[in-house]
Amino acid sequence: MVDILHRIGAEHTTPEQAYESLATLEGLSGWWTENTTGTTDVGGRIAFKFENGEFEMEVLELEPGERVLWEVVGGDVPEWIGTKIHWDLRREGDYTVVLFKHEGWREPIEFMHHCSTKWGSFLMSLKQQLETGTGAPWPRDVHTDNWG
Amino acid sequence: MVDILHRIGAEHTTPEQAYESLATLEGLSGWWTENTTGTTDVGGRIAFKFENGEFEMEVLELEPGERVLWEVVGGDVPEWIGTKIHWDLRREGDYTVVLFKHEGWREPIEFMHHCSTKWGSFLMSLKQQLETGTGAPWPRDVHTDNWG
Repeated sequence: MVDILHRIGAEHTTPEQAYESLATLEGLSGWWTENTTGTTDVGGRIAFKFENGEFEMEVLELEPGERVLWEVVGGDVPEWIGTKIHWDLRREGDYTVVLFKHEGWREPIEFMHHCSTKWGSFLMSLKQQLETGTGAPWPRDVHTDNWG
Repeated sequence: MVDILHRIGAEHTTPEQAYESLATLEGLSGWWTENTTGTTDVGGRIAFKFENGEFEMEVLELEPGERVLWEVVGGDVPEWIGTKIHWDLRREGDYTVVLFKHEGWREPIEFMHHCSTKWGSFLMSLKQQLETGTGAPWPRDVHTDNWG
């Protein structure tokens, strides 16, 4: 099993605001995909749609200002099904630190390389949303390669 | 052992040009750090200096237009010593694809999360250099968190 890891730090915000960006449809729509629907409570399911794919997450854990955990339970990307996405938040000086882990890939296939760079780019979109109020969610996302 | 993986695709360039960005001091200075010195032949050592740290790589393999392999042999970042950095290049339609692997981390420590996002950001700098002629090497690099 292999994991994708990332870390961003955002200024001019708080772990509570970062939590809102991860635990509400409005927040998620502002940095990952504008097409975010579903229920964000524990046990709820959130659907994230992009031009060529969709992910459905079940919300496993929520600790306001501290932690969000999802499991990928549906969608049309078989490599993601059963993987988990961890978000850990904390204050460090003037920064809100977001630790990210996309855990449980079966193999380090080329698509995992793509997803790692794309996650990094979307985390920079989250940082931008937290610092300026405006992120770059799909369809306004930064292109990292030829796989969209 | 755990690895950092990334993938970018650049338009308006070729695998040969991407190779020049990885196998010459001028190319490397244009997207990673302006303070790049040393010898880029196989068996040579390249030093990459940043504000708060330095990495020294030995060039293990060079295949023009296809592949570059480094081993981290010195510098002041103990977590990197002994790790390897793989660059694989190929053409795919209108894109030059760069597959990246920073292999052999002993533990998935928080610093590895930081380095993963920072590598992604520097790979986007490489993409920008290849597509526009101007990357964002240190000290003009994009800040991803409070660790510089």
